[in-house]
Amino acid sequence: MLEFFKVTDLASVFKNAEAFTPVDAETVPLPESCGRVLAETISADRDLPEFLRATMDGYAVKASATFGASDGSPAYLTVKGTVSMGQTPTFSIAHGEVCRISTGGMLPEGTDSVVMIEHTEMLDDTTIEVYRSVAPGQHVVEVGEDFRRGQVILEAGQYLRPQETGLLAAFGQQSVRVFRRPTIAIISTGDEVVPIDSTPVQGQIRDVNSYSLSGQVLAAGGIPVRYGIVRDNYEALYATCRDALTGSDMILLSGGSSVGVRDFTIDVLTQLPDSRILVHGISISPGKPTILANTQKKAVWGLPGHVVSAMVVFKVVVQPFIEHVAGLSPSQRQAFRIPARLSRNIGSAQGRTDFIRVRLTRDNDEYRAEPILGKSGLLNTMVMADGLIEIDVNTEGLDAGAEVAVIPL
Amino acid sequence: MLEFFKVTDLASVFKNAEAFTPVDAETVPLPESCGRVLAETISADRDLPEFLRATMDGYAVKASATFGASDGSPAYLTVKGTVSMGQTPTFSIAHGEVCRISTGGMLPEGTDSVVMIEHTEMLDDTTIEVYRSVAPGQHVVEVGEDFRRGQVILEAGQYLRPQETGLLAAFGQQSVRVFRRPTIAIISTGDEVVPIDSTPVQGQIRDVNSYSLSGQVLAAGGIPVRYGIVRDNYEALYATCRDALTGSDMILLSGGSSVGVRDFTIDVLTQLPDSRILVHGISISPGKPTILANTQKKAVWGLPGHVVSAMVVFKVVVQPFIEHVAGLSPSQRQAFRIPARLSRNIGSAQGRTDFIRVRLTRDNDEYRAEPILGKSGLLNTMVMADGLIEIDVNTEGLDAGAEVAVIPL
Repeated sequence: MLEFFKVTDLASVFKNAEAFTPVDAETVPLPESCGRVLAETISADRDLPEFLRATMDGYAVKASATFGASDGSPAYLTVKGTVSMGQTPTFSIAHGEVCRISTGGMLPEGTDSVVMIEHTEMLDDTTIEVYRSVAPGQHVVEVGEDFRRGQVILEAGQYLRPQETGLLAAFGQQSVRVFRRPTIAIISTGDEVVPIDSTPVQGQIRDVNSYSLSGQVLAAGGIPVRYGIVRDNYEALYATCRDALTGSDMILLSGGSSVGVRDFTIDVLTQLPDSRILVHGISISPGKPTILANTQKKAVWGLPGHVVSAMVVFKVVVQPFIEHVAGLSPSQRQAFRIPARLSRNIGSAQGRTDFIRVRLTRDNDEYRAEPILGKSGLLNTMVMADGLIEIDVNTEGLDAGAEVAVIPL
Repeated sequence: MLEFFKVTDLASVFKNAEAFTPVDAETVPLPESCGRVLAETISADRDLPEFLRATMDGYAVKASATFGASDGSPAYLTVKGTVSMGQTPTFSIAHGEVCRISTGGMLPEGTDSVVMIEHTEMLDDTTIEVYRSVAPGQHVVEVGEDFRRGQVILEAGQYLRPQETGLLAAFGQQSVRVFRRPTIAIISTGDEVVPIDSTPVQGQIRDVNSYSLSGQVLAAGGIPVRYGIVRDNYEALYATCRDALTGSDMILLSGGSSVGVRDFTIDVLTQLPDSRILVHGISISPGKPTILANTQKKAVWGLPGHVVSAMVVFKVVVQPFIEHVAGLSPSQRQAFRIPARLSRNIGSAQGRTDFIRVRLTRDNDEYRAEPILGKSGLLNTMVMADGLIEIDVNTEGLDAGAEVAVIPL
């Protein structure tokens, strides 16, 4: 009655990612680059900064003029004017002279450092006492100290955070080549699933997966496109998949928990043009019945119908594929996991990788990961959860106090 | 020459947050609710699920009919049809009978559990052998087991992740009341700052802060509005602030590192109608010269001009204010910090809170936090950094190997 399939282990599933081509690039205005993936490698076209720049308010000076200065034996120096912000100084400074300068100002010729205003006293309009010596280069940023002309500043495949967007601004990039955000089609299946604006009768449930998966796609950097609910019907599923393939970079089918839909899904993914099933079952829990096909070089997933299983599979299996397709370089793909200590023993079957929902609580300087009990189909366990812990395929369980690495949800 | 101001400690700065009113609410379609802050408390208008639901493929049965069943002594049960997905069963099941059911199906009257298909064998069209007993409630979700009618499912002030959006879908919320995303005005000041489409001459720098702060505002859930660069001029700064106040919920001024602009900023924030300076200097590094005013009940910040200082102050000081104004409840405001071990000794001055940029590397099961050296004005230190560690006001420094909690950047 049931097809018994040979499950694939998680590591082998991930090896399929390289089969799918990253999306192409587009040009966006700089302010829209934040949160995107850079599609070009960018080099510095100039030094940053391009001039010797003060990092303190005070007096620009040749450091050697202050050597030996102390409270008891100050250096007396002549003030030769003020550096105007944003202007190239029109004068130069001789030994024994200084000029007033503000943070960010350009040091004039003849100076190499800044005496902080706190270490000086004005004697009259043109003379100051300096109580502290400075070293050459003190309280200044050297030419090219931040970035040198010709240096690679950002590489293709890098995720752009606010500081990288700032860096692009510093080099005058008004627009930037980024990878297009991949479009991810979301299709719910199952005769028991009704749209959220329906009132379900006994035996029906509302279409939760279309919305929870949309949220996950957005959080993973994709653009979700909802195709709604497809009935347990081969022709309908085939037609919807065919439509979705033309407009998307990946397809997420969810549902098919009933035998009929599961069979249809397999049939459709086998019979679509240029389509091949790569994975039919993964040795993970929850999420074992997950299907992956390569259809016209696009990943098509058959996710479990259970909301929780579908969300867990998305997080731990699908998301790395989206990140690959989105152009992220491998070093950028792994989000930080939060080290924590397990609050209680948990068992696990050998031969599969278990993902356990946990709540995080602070326990002095560390986090305590408290497993959330409850049947895997219950949405409330996901609402209570802060993250997931992974119990390795070769581990029979973990003891209370074990160090775990929590995947944030 | 310089105004010497009395700095405020960080904890006292945060006490000002409550003075600012959270933004009002708006209604958005459910798919746009993800990443937003809920503005209403929502209760379950029905049980979830509303019917006894199978979590496995198999046979719905009264558990007592399987008691004592084993491989050696199977129970023989009569198959009375199939539950159709999405339909209320039209038949009931007597003792000694079963019906076929798929995961997600509704159990018919007279049954309380599901025998997994793997633990059965078909003898003929109407008879199965059952090799394993089940307990009442096994492989089913009870009525209301996920959420009970009347129960509060989500509270106002909660951040909506994909699972909360899914939960709202389960309860048929096609649209949802969320707090408006706060609009944050960004104004750069300083005669040395030029727009990013200009080629700076010696002494000038491009306006980085407008873009790095925009990115941070977006990441914090706000809507950045850039007002561009204002020259070192009281009237210009006053006029721009006045304009920005009408259209925004908060203002970020950055720059003013020169003495002139700092004075103008203080004057403008003092002289705008209904405006009062709350904080003039914070005992943190970087970021000491930060200013906070309450202007017409909106927070107006004077941030340092240094890109790095401005970003650090945003992350550790401004962001909690944005989260408050955005309606996030206090329990939702603190992002997780990543526990790590410090790779080397770092010193710190007592009497101020230091924020040190660190890079995170994996070291077996834990993270190693490696301080990034380099002058605080250098953008490259932020590009290399994965996060910040906080060195408390009463601590003189931390030793290599110390446990630290990294604020992700």
